[in-house]
Amino acid sequence: MSDIKQSNVDVLVIGAGPAGVIAADWLARFTKYGVKTRVIDKRSHKVFTGQADGLNPRSLEMFQSFNLMGKIGSEANPMNEVSFWAPNENHGGIERSRRIPDTIPGISRYVQSVLHQGRIERHIIDDMLEKSNGTMKIERGVLPESLEINDDLIDEDDAYPVKVGVRQLSEEESRPKLASKHGEVESGLYKSNLIKDEEDDVEFNPNVPVGDKEIINAKYVIGADGAHSWVRRQLGFKMVGEGTDFVWGVVDGVPITNFPDIRCRAAIHSNAGSLMVIPREGKIVRLYIQLNLTVDEGGHVDRSLITPKMLMEQAKAVFHPYTIDIPEIIWYTGYQIGQRLTTEYAKNNRVFIAGDACHTHSPKAGQGMNASMADTYNLCWKIGHVLSGHAPRSILDTYESERRPFAEHLIMNDAQLAKLFSGKPLSSAELNELGIDMKEFETVLEKGISFFLGTSIEYFNSAATANGKDGRLASKQELATKVPVGQRFPSFQVVSQFDGRHFHLVDTMFAEGQFTIVLFAGNMENPVHRQRLETIAQRLDSDDGVVSKHTPNNRERDSIIDIKTVHCGNRVNVEVHDFPQPTVYPPGTYNKLYVDDVSYHAGHGEAYKNYGISEEAGAVVVVRPDHFVGLVTSLDGAGFDDVETYFSNLLKTVPAGERNSAKDIKVIPQPKIN
Amino acid sequence: MSDIKQSNVDVLVIGAGPAGVIAADWLARFTKYGVKTRVIDKRSHKVFTGQADGLNPRSLEMFQSFNLMGKIGSEANPMNEVSFWAPNENHGGIERSRRIPDTIPGISRYVQSVLHQGRIERHIIDDMLEKSNGTMKIERGVLPESLEINDDLIDEDDAYPVKVGVRQLSEEESRPKLASKHGEVESGLYKSNLIKDEEDDVEFNPNVPVGDKEIINAKYVIGADGAHSWVRRQLGFKMVGEGTDFVWGVVDGVPITNFPDIRCRAAIHSNAGSLMVIPREGKIVRLYIQLNLTVDEGGHVDRSLITPKMLMEQAKAVFHPYTIDIPEIIWYTGYQIGQRLTTEYAKNNRVFIAGDACHTHSPKAGQGMNASMADTYNLCWKIGHVLSGHAPRSILDTYESERRPFAEHLIMNDAQLAKLFSGKPLSSAELNELGIDMKEFETVLEKGISFFLGTSIEYFNSAATANGKDGRLASKQELATKVPVGQRFPSFQVVSQFDGRHFHLVDTMFAEGQFTIVLFAGNMENPVHRQRLETIAQRLDSDDGVVSKHTPNNRERDSIIDIKTVHCGNRVNVEVHDFPQPTVYPPGTYNKLYVDDVSYHAGHGEAYKNYGISEEAGAVVVVRPDHFVGLVTSLDGAGFDDVETYFSNLLKTVPAGERNSAKDIKVIPQPKIN
Repeated sequence: MSDIKQSNVDVLVIGAGPAGVIAADWLARFTKYGVKTRVIDKRSHKVFTGQADGLNPRSLEMFQSFNLMGKIGSEANPMNEVSFWAPNENHGGIERSRRIPDTIPGISRYVQSVLHQGRIERHIIDDMLEKSNGTMKIERGVLPESLEINDDLIDEDDAYPVKVGVRQLSEEESRPKLASKHGEVESGLYKSNLIKDEEDDVEFNPNVPVGDKEIINAKYVIGADGAHSWVRRQLGFKMVGEGTDFVWGVVDGVPITNFPDIRCRAAIHSNAGSLMVIPREGKIVRLYIQLNLTVDEGGHVDRSLITPKMLMEQAKAVFHPYTIDIPEIIWYTGYQIGQRLTTEYAKNNRVFIAGDACHTHSPKAGQGMNASMADTYNLCWKIGHVLSGHAPRSILDTYESERRPFAEHLIMNDAQLAKLFSGKPLSSAELNELGIDMKEFETVLEKGISFFLGTSIEYFNSAATANGKDGRLASKQELATKVPVGQRFPSFQVVSQFDGRHFHLVDTMFAEGQFTIVLFAGNMENPVHRQRLETIAQRLDSDDGVVSKHTPNNRERDSIIDIKTVHCGNRVNVEVHDFPQPTVYPPGTYNKLYVDDVSYHAGHGEAYKNYGISEEAGAVVVVRPDHFVGLVTSLDGAGFDDVETYFSNLLKTVPAGERNSAKDIKVIPQPKIN
Repeated sequence: MSDIKQSNVDVLVIGAGPAGVIAADWLARFTKYGVKTRVIDKRSHKVFTGQADGLNPRSLEMFQSFNLMGKIGSEANPMNEVSFWAPNENHGGIERSRRIPDTIPGISRYVQSVLHQGRIERHIIDDMLEKSNGTMKIERGVLPESLEINDDLIDEDDAYPVKVGVRQLSEEESRPKLASKHGEVESGLYKSNLIKDEEDDVEFNPNVPVGDKEIINAKYVIGADGAHSWVRRQLGFKMVGEGTDFVWGVVDGVPITNFPDIRCRAAIHSNAGSLMVIPREGKIVRLYIQLNLTVDEGGHVDRSLITPKMLMEQAKAVFHPYTIDIPEIIWYTGYQIGQRLTTEYAKNNRVFIAGDACHTHSPKAGQGMNASMADTYNLCWKIGHVLSGHAPRSILDTYESERRPFAEHLIMNDAQLAKLFSGKPLSSAELNELGIDMKEFETVLEKGISFFLGTSIEYFNSAATANGKDGRLASKQELATKVPVGQRFPSFQVVSQFDGRHFHLVDTMFAEGQFTIVLFAGNMENPVHRQRLETIAQRLDSDDGVVSKHTPNNRERDSIIDIKTVHCGNRVNVEVHDFPQPTVYPPGTYNKLYVDDVSYHAGHGEAYKNYGISEEAGAVVVVRPDHFVGLVTSLDGAGFDDVETYFSNLLKTVPAGERNSAKDIKVIPQPKIN
């Protein structure tokens, strides 16, 4: 053992899929505060075909919080419309029964989209590289082999209680042995849930020369290593849930067809079985095809029966009277529908699992990647604040308490949808018989869509959410009726006081780890409102104020708690030097002061109205680093007592002499006009 | 001579500034048709500070035609507002007199923006690399030394009549000698118009060992080599125009100020002189400062008097009663206001000059880069079509006939604006005295803004524009009253028939060299309109139709003339298989059929109404490769006669046996539903 290289790291991320790269990209943002992160993945090659690719609006909002939608948005294919197809009672073939938008209009500025997982990971990894100033990379072909937690060290902040033994694989070994082709067609079966954990492990048993070994001592480990998660199995957590007898196949390719909705998400119930069309980037289309395969008593499916030819024959039967051909199938796979959830998410708040390692379900609702990324997006700003010394380790409890209820909800929805989708369609004459009612199917799908959009996720069971439950701090929800505490902060357009440009409010607060206190300050033309803001500003400028109290003097003043002011009224009747310096308006900054007013080129955002905030009373909204709403309260002393309580519960208090002080900021005097 | 390396190239671009890189990026799009382009620049280093940076909406539309606005848009700083400041009659300092939007609302989806020239060039060069499949690069440190045109070869299509001798400079020699610093501050004086041509040449006189020489034989040469253009001087073209006595200085830096409009384009007339504020990316601001410097009898200014300190002293006097300081000036320069235009644009349609080589004017209106890029954007698709064999060389006549009138217009506007801007402000009591009336100043600036936005440029004197002038083909302008022939095609939202997504219509026709015939086909629910489209489709499917006639069988059918159909009415009442195959609806394509209907997420584009097209009559619009309108005509036989005439005048006719034929496209039968 003494010959083996040893190293220390703050966070070790195991697995560079969607959950892993989001973890890495978050933690990259803490590099500048000294947080060191490594990311390993056992495979040597990236995903090039197939795999998950559905992005719901919430995931796109999350990308935009990292300022990535310029790039990702220009490549993704929005899925605009869902059309439903059912058997025609006369000719027996399919006919369109209705169409609806895939994304409920108005719910987000983004719509459900599709982009290849490899491209998404590429953009996130590029961002990680940039944000970490080139210091982070993905270490591929590195296999974890052992994991131990030293119980004596788990409560020591500066200790490295997790010991992970890893081995650098040879190029040959790190290529999946189970990967195969059917003729020229890439098969994804080796990654599907038709593979058992044991089969997945066998891939990496060392029958090639042993590569370099290393012991990594980590403060924290994140297992983002997929449905067959090795980390989860080391921790002894179980996946609990049910499989079904339903087996589905998937093909990707460019179709030749006279089916008119080939560029829509088409949900087809036919007499020959069910099928879902997912339009993808370029002219590629994915077909999810229900198969007539049986599952044996051991729960196994004969994978060899699933071939491109068999899948297309089934698809053709479903599409009748329309014709479809895919001259070149570029990828195919199969899977068995089932829903499973891990018994635990974290061990000692030192080792966490995330993504498919925690929850698996059917892929058709396009939730896998979204749910996985949302896990680590929730977790890693918390780890970042703990490691940079600003938050106590107790904040990590909120990972499981926030993400498990979501996963339960997801699995329930998915099971219901999958069951309906795999059932036989019924003619209207058979409506009261056994089977699936098309109306019910569509209603459930519509309801499911609303959940699957991701914008209504609620973290109700958490210390980071002031919703008054279980004795926690309560919000004054009535002051911002459309900003539900515990849900993501919705975004509406505001206008910069400085130059009249319009912005989505959340685009003024890109996710770098900071909390944001948004002061909806009322009408700055009104002297009473100006005085109210002045009073709050004095409290914020104080060395006992919430900013100084939680920000050490070696950190930028707005890097832990940022203040944005959104006033209402008429922009041109207010001057920037009417705003109180320096915390509310730090001189020389142009991204703190906004107004809910009409813009020159994009109309009026009506932010106060859309947030349900009164122009007279105003409101204070605390937005978490992940853009979820932590607290809604009042624009007065009592409200600021709540703000201070909120942060005291969540962040460490900096000792008096070491605080960042507003007194160090040079104020610019108002112009002397007379 | 025989030892000197010789090589052939289709196009040699001299100069890799804005005009040069746009030329390169256009020509990169013709690489796939065998067109070879080289780009040389005498300097070894790129522009890092200072230089032009104003982008008008038309330039942004041009970038978007190359699909670059995702990247450029996310970096550019929109200049949203212009504010006017004038002396207050009581305290003598400045006060705001009014504010207006910098871009007339509704004129374009983009607004005036600012981005550093180096970043813009970077994005365009990246695109050139991608579009040329990695085959093109910018050859830096290469100095042209001789240029000869062989008159005997100028009419031969396949000849290389232009011989350019070039020399690879040493690293030392290719760094501008005149470049200098004032203390730590980068000076741009060596590139300003305070330098004479002779001084610019002296830089490169070889007093270092001679580098590698090469003779480049080119079919075409583009001189995009700036105001001191070496190419222009080789051709013997003169710059004609006037200088003025007005001298201005420029500084870039991050200011500390209580001037409230520091993030607006502020046009300040003060008793101490004039000044313009240009907000730039990040927190950088540029100040254009009128100086109290005199020009001596030889027209020379003592450049040594222009220092950062002197510029800031003048700026501070202008801003009173506001305070301003720029602790670190990052770049400064000076220039003398003048407007000059070249006597000729092209020699034998073989050597062209473009950009600052053709026209110079004052930089304050931010037109330099825009006008330069628009020159080569106009020229290079024409060269591309000539070189790939599809257009006769006569199309190149339209470069000067289209771009010279624009330059004349530009220079006239600029002279008027510059004179007004450099004049002394007058109190209202002095309105009838000598000098400048503030009202007149603001009116001229407002009018100038409308021109400077670039969206109203009209090519009225050109064979590529069917406007009926000088005996040319006439359009039926009344059928599309808001699509002025000879101006850029405005863009409005339409909806894809396939998936209901909304698009800006021009985003369905990214510039790859193709002309687009837009069929505003009327209401596809109406059998009469469907039959009308069917009749046109049959004509388009014919081997004598306009597509086959001008497209050889080795080119994609839609690569020279593309057809887009925009119908009106209700999308959901029409099926894609109602459209005629294969030219109008080539099966397997999803980017040909659109509808002017309401979208799910972005309202109704009202394209017919905004284009001034009747839903009953419809219209045909021919859009040129540079997105200017070539022809507006009727949706009938007479209209298609005009369409055919338009293309016969502009493109070569492919011999009958070599044409791309609609018969080669496999039609997909309609589904058999009964």
